[in-house]
Formats: sequence, structure tokens, C-alpha cells
Amino acid sequence: MSDTHSLDTLIQALRRLPGVGVRSAQRMAFHLLQHDREGARQLGRALHEAVDQVRHCAQCHTFTESEVCATCNDPRRDASQLAVVETPADQAALERTGAFRGRYFVLMGKLSPLDGIGPRDIGAQRLIERACDGVVREVILATNFTAEGEATAHVIGQALRSRGLVVTRLARGVPAGSELEYVDLGTIAHALVDRR
Amino acid sequence: MSDTHSLDTLIQALRRLPGVGVRSAQRMAFHLLQHDREGARQLGRALHEAVDQVRHCAQCHTFTESEVCATCNDPRRDASQLAVVETPADQAALERTGAFRGRYFVLMGKLSPLDGIGPRDIGAQRLIERACDGVVREVILATNFTAEGEATAHVIGQALRSRGLVVTRLARGVPAGSELEYVDLGTIAHALVDRR
Repeated sequence: MSDTHSLDTLIQALRRLPGVGVRSAQRMAFHLLQHDREGARQLGRALHEAVDQVRHCAQCHTFTESEVCATCNDPRRDASQLAVVETPADQAALERTGAFRGRYFVLMGKLSPLDGIGPRDIGAQRLIERACDGVVREVILATNFTAEGEATAHVIGQALRSRGLVVTRLARGVPAGSELEYVDLGTIAHALVDRR
Repeated sequence: MSDTHSLDTLIQALRRLPGVGVRSAQRMAFHLLQHDREGARQLGRALHEAVDQVRHCAQCHTFTESEVCATCNDPRRDASQLAVVETPADQAALERTGAFRGRYFVLMGKLSPLDGIGPRDIGAQRLIERACDGVVREVILATNFTAEGEATAHVIGQALRSRGLVVTRLARGVPAGSELEYVDLGTIAHALVDRR
């Protein structure tokens, strides 16, 4: 119906969000127009603002509004350690532990041949240049422990080791606070192999 | 971190969408900024456009960009029958059947005392005025067959009947194409009571 053109356009636009199908998009559009028009305007402004302002840190490639992000700019961070993570969310998780005081490189993705995502798409060349700056001594691979995260760590690790860098990987093992009885077998087997 | 202010604002704004928590909002924001900035701009424009353009039909209260929606404006529709539905999506489902050629009244919600949604919020008074225009002869209650939809139909039905209107309700029964063995007992019991 032509008298709902802008509603239809909104529903189509909402479907570009990951995980949002036609039903969810309808529900979101109806909700905003019926109950939260101010929220719709805020979201509209926030989208334009973020697209205009957010770019990638020249050093670690995470999202930032500056040339270089706050973490890379922080002189108290240990420049000899570089942690490689998949996403800013993973970086935030590592930061919350308070256990790492080095620098980061954020891949903004992971190798995924089936989706056509190769080393170039995750900035592998930029990572190698970053890691070979003469200051970094250890690269800690902190990609996820999924099939794709492991493959990413493997490929990146090989490339970095061949350039003489020390490359380590986050330890696999039994999660803190868990009872062996309820931990999956693969995790226990890894914890046994990696015992210290 | 102050250098990600517009990203944080975007994540907060996305959380106002129904069913979107902080993780989904992060994932959506990262996806748009990393892979679909044009989609983000489109969504931003679509939100402003829809908020500016979409209003409620003066007759049936559905979303429209005109004073009166296309369905209410269509002279071929039977003005003596008025179907009451909860949402534009429900109206669209009824339209797809091709079995109804009357007019609609869209409540844009349902009675839900626990959420503080009373008769005023679903435009009960407007519905009564609309149904008492002297042309409508039958009001067909097509609210959902949920507890809240049934309660809404009950309350509205009483108000309309007390004004001398013929009020009917969509039939409950066994869905077309289904085998009794797999139909839930409540549905079978209703189908038995409402047998014809």
C-alpha cells in the first residue's frame, strides 16, 4: 500500500540488522512508532553520528573517534606485549580481568573461508607490520576457542613465528569455579594435556 | 572510554528496540560500523522519515501517511462490517485470506492490566463511536486467541452489544490441514463446543 511507504522502508532498513527477520523488523517498527517515537529519533541520530565519527585506530584497528585509540595512546601500557583479539567486545572482556597491561590488535573479525573472509579481511598484513615494530616481544593470541578462532590463531601464529616473534596462546582449561563432573570432556582433556 | 562516545550512544539507542539486550545491541552496532555503514545511514534516514510521516488513520487508527488509510478510503469495501484487530500485522493476515471485504478498526494493542494498558490505551471509546456511525451493522472481533486477546474481545464485545450492535467473534477450531491426533486438547474441546 502506497500510503505506508515510509513504514515499509523502515521495516526493510531494520532487516539489515544482524539477526532481524521480517517479523522482528515489523515488531520493532510498530513498537517505535506506537510507543517510542523519541527513541526512534534518538536511534536515527545515533546512527548518523556513529557512522560519521567512528573510525579505526591507526595502531590496533579497534573502533575509535580519534586517530589513535585511548588504549594505544596510554603510555602506562606495556608496549612489549600485544594481545590479538577478534572484536572490541573480546578486548573489553580481557580488559575487565585487569590481568593484561599490554597493547592490543583487534582483527575486527576472524578467518572464515566459507563466508569468504580471508587473511586480508582481518588485516593480517597490518598485524604483522604492527608486531614487527621492534618493540613488541610477545604476541598473545586471544582469539576465541571456536573452530574459526582456532584456525585464525593458527594461521596468524605461523606467520608471526616465521618472523622470529614469541607467540603464545591463551590457556585452555577448566573454567574457574566449575566442578569436573559438569565440565565437557574436550575441556578436561585439554586441561590434562596443558597441565602445569 | 571517551573516544568511543558515539559508539556507546549507538549501542544505548539500539537497546530501545524491543527484544534487544546489551549483547545484541553491541553486535548490531559492530556489524553496521564494520560491514554496512550504508545500511546504517539508510536505517537512520528511514527512522526520521517514518517518525515524520507515519500517523494514525482517522477512521481505523492503523498506521498511514494520509489522513485516512487506503483501506478506509476504498469505496468497494463493505462499510456494514467492521473487523477489530490488535495490530496492522493481524490486519495484514486477515487481508491475505481474501475472505473479508469489510472495514477495520486497529486497536494498536490489547488490554493488559498487568502492564497498565486499559480500555483508553487501545482506543475503546473511538472504536465505539466508529461502530455507532449508523452504517456498521456487524462488528467482528478478530483479536488474538490469547488470554489478553480474549479479555480484550470480551470487554469490547460487551460495550458494543450494550449499544445494540451485532457482535461476532472469529471461530475457534481445528486448524485447516491438521490431524486431530496432533491438535492440543483445548482446541479440540472448543471445536466440539462450537461444532456446526
